[in-house]
Amino acid sequence: MHILVIGAAGMVGRKLVQSLARDGEVGGRPIERFTLVDVVAAEAPAGFGGAVEISAVDVSSPGVAAGLVAQRPELIFHLAAIVSGEAEADFEKGYRINLDGTRLLLEAIRLEGLKSPYKPRLVFTSSIAVFGAPFPEAIGDEFFSTPLTSYGTQKAIGELLLNDYSRKGFVDGIGIRLPTIVVRPGKPNAAASGFFSNILREPLAGQEAVLPVSRDVRHWFASPRAAVGFLRHAATMDTSLLGWRRSLSAPGLSATVGEEIEALRRVAGERAVALIREEPNETIAGIVAGWPRNFDARRALSLGFVAETSFDDILRAHIEDELDGRVGG
Amino acid sequence: MHILVIGAAGMVGRKLVQSLARDGEVGGRPIERFTLVDVVAAEAPAGFGGAVEISAVDVSSPGVAAGLVAQRPELIFHLAAIVSGEAEADFEKGYRINLDGTRLLLEAIRLEGLKSPYKPRLVFTSSIAVFGAPFPEAIGDEFFSTPLTSYGTQKAIGELLLNDYSRKGFVDGIGIRLPTIVVRPGKPNAAASGFFSNILREPLAGQEAVLPVSRDVRHWFASPRAAVGFLRHAATMDTSLLGWRRSLSAPGLSATVGEEIEALRRVAGERAVALIREEPNETIAGIVAGWPRNFDARRALSLGFVAETSFDDILRAHIEDELDGRVGG
Repeated sequence: MHILVIGAAGMVGRKLVQSLARDGEVGGRPIERFTLVDVVAAEAPAGFGGAVEISAVDVSSPGVAAGLVAQRPELIFHLAAIVSGEAEADFEKGYRINLDGTRLLLEAIRLEGLKSPYKPRLVFTSSIAVFGAPFPEAIGDEFFSTPLTSYGTQKAIGELLLNDYSRKGFVDGIGIRLPTIVVRPGKPNAAASGFFSNILREPLAGQEAVLPVSRDVRHWFASPRAAVGFLRHAATMDTSLLGWRRSLSAPGLSATVGEEIEALRRVAGERAVALIREEPNETIAGIVAGWPRNFDARRALSLGFVAETSFDDILRAHIEDELDGRVGG
Repeated sequence: MHILVIGAAGMVGRKLVQSLARDGEVGGRPIERFTLVDVVAAEAPAGFGGAVEISAVDVSSPGVAAGLVAQRPELIFHLAAIVSGEAEADFEKGYRINLDGTRLLLEAIRLEGLKSPYKPRLVFTSSIAVFGAPFPEAIGDEFFSTPLTSYGTQKAIGELLLNDYSRKGFVDGIGIRLPTIVVRPGKPNAAASGFFSNILREPLAGQEAVLPVSRDVRHWFASPRAAVGFLRHAATMDTSLLGWRRSLSAPGLSATVGEEIEALRRVAGERAVALIREEPNETIAGIVAGWPRNFDARRALSLGFVAETSFDDILRAHIEDELDGRVGG
């Protein structure tokens, strides 16, 4: 099997490729070849015996998608996106990457299929940002899509295109709306959602972290490990079960910041919790107030998607996957 | 006021322009100028004293939208579209006209506004095809958008773009999902929905008409006169009442084919009804079975949109507007 990963240098893309390469197969079929695409060169996965082609290109540039698809990968992961904050600040760039990039990929697949039959599985990462406030207590898969950001608009359009290209038989598409991923490895970043990871990751490494919102803020979470699991399951599941509603909200954990902190206390002790410094920030609190807090993911659960059910599990996944099982500083 | 109408040669566009020209004003502001655009030359409205520019161009061609918007019309009606059947048969044409055409217009408006402040009112005709079966008893404005045609997909994307461009302050947009328009003037056409008009219009003119479905088929209707009223109201209403959900389902009449026929009997007598020939057609019946049957249009009604409440009213509108008040053959 030949797998194309677009957005392979991002956090989820990197972990997905490592996971697939480690197993050497997907859905019982051996992986012979990876094509790893991102705007910067992705890393080749360690210990993979097959072919790896690494390409630092922008999939929204003319001809790029067609060139990638001409190799006829059987499985395509399209993870590349300009994130929410940047898409809001740079309107043209957001539409170019998040809308045109996705549409050009779908068009390249359709046009390749006109030459001779070709219908790859396409796994697309959508976002819970397709939904806009006011929200019900728990957002179901039948809640309407009224995004309040350009990023959410671009992802909602991606979902509509994925449905239509699948319905017409041009591609076998599935879109997964990922929860907010915690604990993100790496350095603290400027994203408004960064603190959800920072207040766990930094104390686990013996470093201080800033908490800009109150402890009763509730949000929707899954670990990087769970996110990789969603994408792998999407790559192999029976998509006929989706009908023509090809996108779904992944399962996750609805939890408060206070619950995050209690899990940290249980796993790493009082000393770790003491490293969290409360510095209320009204701007961040205002942004976060508009975000979804809970989902009814029964559709994804019934289709076999699995997520953590406690913050202790999310923390343990981080400690095992990023810290070699060690807690401390 | 300078008004740009894109899709001015279509049935609704023509009636809209005639109506505006007759009044000579909109929202209390005198109309000085029309720019009438369509792929074929639109007719100049009779008796209008101001300037009329008629342009036979395709708004999805490079530079066309920018050229139109450079004239800075204060009010734009975007009615141009490839209809459902053709958009399903010709995938590329449907996306070019219905998606790219709308997006190019929005982009032209945004880019014009970067030169110096410019934020026109844009009235966009969306469609009830943004919704897909299975439906609730009555489809509310909060029902989710899962189109089952390429046309519906393109209109749903248009709604998302209209929301985002309005939210960002680039345009003052409003989208109206029109009911099926009856009685359409003119000749019978091949559209699957054609019979809803044919079985009234033809008998009123003393001609036979074919009914391909059973009399208990229910659908959602408004007259051409009501459609013009929706667009005129959309052009002048306070759009701040819409929040960032800039599209809405127009009010209409939910009625069965049997109720259509009973209204015809009341208005034109048994002789007219006898001209309807029942010729069941399973293909058409199958298509129609997937269409919406009823809407909960309380949002539009509360915002001041008005539609007919009986088929007798729809028939009378046709007889007054198209037949100079005369029934017969």
